[in-house]
Amino acid sequence: HISKLPGNKTSIFSIMSKMANDHDAINLSQGFPNFETDKKLKSLVTQAMKGGYNQYPPDAGVLELREEISKKIQSLYGRSYNPDREITITSGATEALYTAITAFIKPGDEVIVFKPAYDSYEPTIKLNGGVPVQIQLTGENYRVDWEEVKKAISSKTKMIIINTPHNPTGSILDTKDMKELENILTRTDIILLSDEVYEHLIFDKNEHQSASKFPGLAERSVVCASFGKTFHNTGWKTGYCVAPDHLMQEIRKIHELTVFSVNHPMQVAYADYLKDPKHYLELSGFYQNKRDLFLNLIKDSRFSFTPSSGTYFQLLNFSVITDEKDVDFAERLVKEKGLAAIPVSVFNINKKDNRQLRFCFAKTDETLEKAAEILCKL
Amino acid sequence: HISKLPGNKTSIFSIMSKMANDHDAINLSQGFPNFETDKKLKSLVTQAMKGGYNQYPPDAGVLELREEISKKIQSLYGRSYNPDREITITSGATEALYTAITAFIKPGDEVIVFKPAYDSYEPTIKLNGGVPVQIQLTGENYRVDWEEVKKAISSKTKMIIINTPHNPTGSILDTKDMKELENILTRTDIILLSDEVYEHLIFDKNEHQSASKFPGLAERSVVCASFGKTFHNTGWKTGYCVAPDHLMQEIRKIHELTVFSVNHPMQVAYADYLKDPKHYLELSGFYQNKRDLFLNLIKDSRFSFTPSSGTYFQLLNFSVITDEKDVDFAERLVKEKGLAAIPVSVFNINKKDNRQLRFCFAKTDETLEKAAEILCKL
Ligand SMILES: CSCCC(=O)C(=O)O
Ligand SMILES: CSCCC(=O)C(=O)O
Repeated sequence: HISKLPGNKTSIFSIMSKMANDHDAINLSQGFPNFETDKKLKSLVTQAMKGGYNQYPPDAGVLELREEISKKIQSLYGRSYNPDREITITSGATEALYTAITAFIKPGDEVIVFKPAYDSYEPTIKLNGGVPVQIQLTGENYRVDWEEVKKAISSKTKMIIINTPHNPTGSILDTKDMKELENILTRTDIILLSDEVYEHLIFDKNEHQSASKFPGLAERSVVCASFGKTFHNTGWKTGYCVAPDHLMQEIRKIHELTVFSVNHPMQVAYADYLKDPKHYLELSGFYQNKRDLFLNLIKDSRFSFTPSSGTYFQLLNFSVITDEKDVDFAERLVKEKGLAAIPVSVFNINKKDNRQLRFCFAKTDETLEKAAEILCKL
Repeated sequence: HISKLPGNKTSIFSIMSKMANDHDAINLSQGFPNFETDKKLKSLVTQAMKGGYNQYPPDAGVLELREEISKKIQSLYGRSYNPDREITITSGATEALYTAITAFIKPGDEVIVFKPAYDSYEPTIKLNGGVPVQIQLTGENYRVDWEEVKKAISSKTKMIIINTPHNPTGSILDTKDMKELENILTRTDIILLSDEVYEHLIFDKNEHQSASKFPGLAERSVVCASFGKTFHNTGWKTGYCVAPDHLMQEIRKIHELTVFSVNHPMQVAYADYLKDPKHYLELSGFYQNKRDLFLNLIKDSRFSFTPSSGTYFQLLNFSVITDEKDVDFAERLVKEKGLAAIPVSVFNINKKDNRQLRFCFAKTDETLEKAAEILCKL
């Protein structure tokens, strides 16, 4: 057959957002805010267009933006990345993840992924002939069992993918986790791909533990980040990755082929906007309030949950409400009740159904109130 | 070794543009205009941002934009593409080319490419384990020898890549070429990848022969196009591809992994702008004037040339001027004379040096005059 990904279906995010639109439903499925990005940022884009930044930027990205990213990482995580050689602007974190996997995974290489996992990792691994090795996150807080990781590592293990704060569960890796991982990896050649797109959305006084903070990890890590998630403009499709020189060289070879370079006026705007740390440091508080509002509004519903520690997602368990499969319940919820959410089974090992839906709380208070009203009636 | 593309160097376009900047040279190397995109188009982007189009668009692109593209192709080339299923907006034509190759080329598959060839085709083929089969374009006008194509086809041939108007030579395929190709392909399962990013830049009353115009080609073709080249904003990184449903399904699987979707406000702006056909129909006349101006200005120089029939590139032969290799001459030209151009050997079979440089004439008249002054002194 002609297909290289024969089993692959359209992403659940596209499917649910389309269903939400078709049924005029409240959309808490795909992860994006329904409030506006800062006016200041929009006018910086307008200025950049007027200023003539409308032709190809350098393939690695606008240098001034890379310099601002370098400063940010230095001040938050204490590691210095060379803007010229170790930072690349990508077409969203999606392209960062894609190029990092494609640059290094050859046929037969094994990649350890923690389940539930974001839905782009495994098809990209398979497209490159790699073999995903799945490890289940355990317990109510979706912890990593590091003994299992040690057992899963073989001579074929080329890469481990972590994601903190974690989509879809809202769990986070702490210092102890990162040190365990550092310990495990220092004796190997394994590359760490660290998906940190929700680095600025972390709650309850927790601190984000970036792979960049741990020398034994940073020297072997590709860290992926997103401006869309941080600055409320997922449709501007701009993110970045950082990695030591010898890894970044390979990533850039792929990046030149996939997109060559990234939207110029948006990059110029972010470079300016990033100069004020307030623009990202205030984000955790902002989203913690959203989470608290949402959980408070549904506290008398029949859903059960553990509060999310990061990301803008909250898992809700509906086993008390219905016997339906999560995909069926999600479909009925959007079609009959006008509320869209993501069935978590699509991210699980063998699509195991734990009767959970994922709700995105990056919404106006009014939207969250309306959604909660529907949820409380179930 | 860790690298999947060990021989691959940074793209010549990045290298030459950087050299041009470093030496404050006139940059006729990388293909982009040095005049501004239409103010109207910029203000449409500003309006789209104000209008709230700042979150993920559909992965296949903004539907209204796909509808406008469908109408355009129908009116220009007489084929109807279903906007919902047969048109996808990509992160520049680069991503369209990348996804089309990646969706179909498996290890061992052969892909016929005509040399000289744009520099992203072959690394992408190799990255997917495919084998480029190179055919030399022949004669002063860089024609395809279709008998050679017939001989090059084997049971392993999965794809043929054509590019008309052709970068870097400015040659074009005519109706007879396309019919020959149609004849050859109708008895096979070979996919045609047609790079038509310069479709609206074609001179001397020639008409662009899109693969979409020929039913026996269109049914097996992925046609790639670029808004950046057409609307003078290569830095907005927006293009598209069209293909019949059964091919597009596979391309979209890859597109969801590489970038997921493309900049939203830019798509909304193009959708509106595309409604007026004048915006692209006047382009050939505009660039023909640029070509004529440039060639007229250097007619007394010691360079020899055949006028470009399309694209915004002109090859100039310098064999009367110097014995240097084209890469050395190009380097000296930018460093000592302050003028950047692309050495054509990088696109040739075995990097054969025919003493040619490629000059981009998408520049203001003033820039072309300054460049010609330098060229006439050599
Ligand atoms: C690229 S669409 C998916 C957005 C997202 O991160 C999510 O909903 O999990
Ligand atoms: C994507 S950079 C190359 C631009 C171009 O098409 C060329 O210069 O040939």
